[in-house]
Amino acid sequence: MTIRLTPLTVSTLLDRVRTEPPLVQCLTNAVVTNFTANVLLALGAAPAMTDIPGEAGPFARAASGVLINLGTPHEEQRRAMLEAAEAANDAGTPWVLDPVAVGSLPVRTALAAELLALRPTAIRGNASEIIALAGLGTGGRGVDATDDPEAALPAALLLAEKHGSVVAVSGPTDLITDGVQTLRISNGDALLTRVTGGGCALGAVTAAFLAVADDGGALAAVAAATAVYTVAAEPAAQASSGPGSFAAGFLDALASLTGQDLEQRLVTA
Amino acid sequence: MTIRLTPLTVSTLLDRVRTEPPLVQCLTNAVVTNFTANVLLALGAAPAMTDIPGEAGPFARAASGVLINLGTPHEEQRRAMLEAAEAANDAGTPWVLDPVAVGSLPVRTALAAELLALRPTAIRGNASEIIALAGLGTGGRGVDATDDPEAALPAALLLAEKHGSVVAVSGPTDLITDGVQTLRISNGDALLTRVTGGGCALGAVTAAFLAVADDGGALAAVAAATAVYTVAAEPAAQASSGPGSFAAGFLDALASLTGQDLEQRLVTA
Amino acid sequence: MTIRLTPLTVSTLLDRVRTEPPLVQCLTNAVVTNFTANVLLALGAAPAMTDIPGEAGPFARAASGVLINLGTPHEEQRRAMLEAAEAANDAGTPWVLDPVAVGSLPVRTALAAELLALRPTAIRGNASEIIALAGLGTGGRGVDATDDPEAALPAALLLAEKHGSVVAVSGPTDLITDGVQTLRISNGDALLTRVTGGGCALGAVTAAFLAVADDGGALAAVAAATAVYTVAAEPAAQASSGPGSFAAGFLDALASLTGQDLEQRLVTA
Repeated sequence: MTIRLTPLTVSTLLDRVRTEPPLVQCLTNAVVTNFTANVLLALGAAPAMTDIPGEAGPFARAASGVLINLGTPHEEQRRAMLEAAEAANDAGTPWVLDPVAVGSLPVRTALAAELLALRPTAIRGNASEIIALAGLGTGGRGVDATDDPEAALPAALLLAEKHGSVVAVSGPTDLITDGVQTLRISNGDALLTRVTGGGCALGAVTAAFLAVADDGGALAAVAAATAVYTVAAEPAAQASSGPGSFAAGFLDALASLTGQDLEQRLVTA
Repeated sequence: MTIRLTPLTVSTLLDRVRTEPPLVQCLTNAVVTNFTANVLLALGAAPAMTDIPGEAGPFARAASGVLINLGTPHEEQRRAMLEAAEAANDAGTPWVLDPVAVGSLPVRTALAAELLALRPTAIRGNASEIIALAGLGTGGRGVDATDDPEAALPAALLLAEKHGSVVAVSGPTDLITDGVQTLRISNGDALLTRVTGGGCALGAVTAAFLAVADDGGALAAVAAATAVYTVAAEPAAQASSGPGSFAAGFLDALASLTGQDLEQRLVTA
Repeated sequence: MTIRLTPLTVSTLLDRVRTEPPLVQCLTNAVVTNFTANVLLALGAAPAMTDIPGEAGPFARAASGVLINLGTPHEEQRRAMLEAAEAANDAGTPWVLDPVAVGSLPVRTALAAELLALRPTAIRGNASEIIALAGLGTGGRGVDATDDPEAALPAALLLAEKHGSVVAVSGPTDLITDGVQTLRISNGDALLTRVTGGGCALGAVTAAFLAVADDGGALAAVAAATAVYTVAAEPAAQASSGPGSFAAGFLDALASLTGQDLEQRLVTA
């Protein structure tokens, strides 16, 4: 079955997020936790940053979707992440792994391997991270993307096939694959890379869309999340004077994005 | 003695915050710590987020007011919270408990019970949290308010009487009670629920107003904090294009709020 | 050799930051980590908030510059800070110490002494903090600056001579000294003190400029960082309606600052 990502598919899922707000649990890094919660709220979803051992697991059972982002994985949060992933699997809650800066950094790289073995519903990263996660490279320097998403396609396919995940690689053209079919979305703006969390918050939006996906609709949901996120960046960038006004305008745009905006702007293949 | 919350009462306390800036110590969650500090700075108060064991207690003795917010209560912070509450009591520093998402989450619910036994000067939460804290329900799902403030009145009265606290329940109409008298404030805007920390930062503002309260003036101070906060949201919402521009405009409005704004907008009963 | 801080010197270093983005590792407090990363991104540098033991050291070896800010020094982060400082020294990576609120708070004050013994490339703080760090006073109340930068000159000279650091004291007129020569910069706006992280983020910018400094150019680099930061605040303040719009406008101004802006606005002695 081949998926076509039409503006209608995307806006149907966006309407669901807005009318039946999914509860999205985020175990994410300290830098972007505020922006991530605000992105989810702007979108219409309900964020909850429950990330301590003893609570992360029970919460993941009740949540609609879970994000696990490895940006600043302190010891206590690492335990909470494993607890959340196991509980999510047990309860059938979809969850997203964002392997921030894996590769040469030893603590998160070991943790990413443990989490990967738990078969995330989706994986989102930049090209360097996806290549490193697949064991095909050593990652970029920190959070930088030093590779083009197309260069990460073999890595994305390998991860998708081996772990049953939908893999999304962020970049000028985003690439989303389930190992069988690969979608590409060419929206967004470079200003998304000038705001911290510009990539990380997309992981949370991905969890929100997975929460409202149809059965077997994970690929479409992950692609729709990317579409909404990157399309919203465009009018925000046009109206902005730099990264500060862009960040505020991007939240406004997520809250007001319409089906018509998607029809006019979505560029997909 | 019956309190009337007039615009003049509110602006008198606001002037004190601005001219003799209280030092407000916040032990709060990672998601909203930045926004909370910015709200206090915009208001004219001096924030300090000192929340590690060994420093939280000494700081609470010197602070003008303390906020303890249970949003992401990591192990080290939990110890610091108990240390701060005990020192605040010992030194006579007013302190506010914000029982974020208590109810079904075991770690914070147990901690909330310990803190409640230390008799907070004020408690601020949404209806679900206040009901759960009083042991009259299991809380909402995460940080959502699934109950109307009026539904939380019995719980608020129970907490106020049992622990000697002023209790504030946030919602479309805020409800503030000391167990004897109940005040209601009908200001604010729904955009406050679309910015993370929209409720949490009010807890810090409440601590700032308690710090400048007259003897026996805790009820008036808590109500005045709510009044300033929710009144400031109204011009900000009117000038905004969505949650991103609202958050920036809300900080601007807190900094520029006048007695005249309060006279024109305050709706209280 | 006497340094003159001309607009050209400053804009030459700013161009280097923009064209060869230094990777700036920040071990900083939870309150300002988001704003700090956004300031670095707006400037054109590449932030990475790697602050856990086992990763902080290896990262500091590869980073272009490191910031260690003591605002909320949790136990795990304290270990990571020492690890990062030692690795930075070993690898020749310049690093900046920001001794937030040292003086009466025991945990961070002890840590600051340990870090000071490792001879930071630069130290940035307000007057109260610099005086306390030098052992010449007990610090202000929390993060407040209760002393004028000029009052901190003896402390700054002492720290510079004893530890071989360039010392920057923030205030209405910023003072930067290497113990031999002292530069003064009179730019900026009071709104920088109404946004949390207004001082802390300058520490990260200082690390970015040290990363692109010429050999023996640490004093000029630290002064250039202060110049860019405080000059950018001026048009942002003029265009703002308060602290919320200022924060966004400041990021925009950092991204768009030109050599001409520096020529027109820089006030230095």
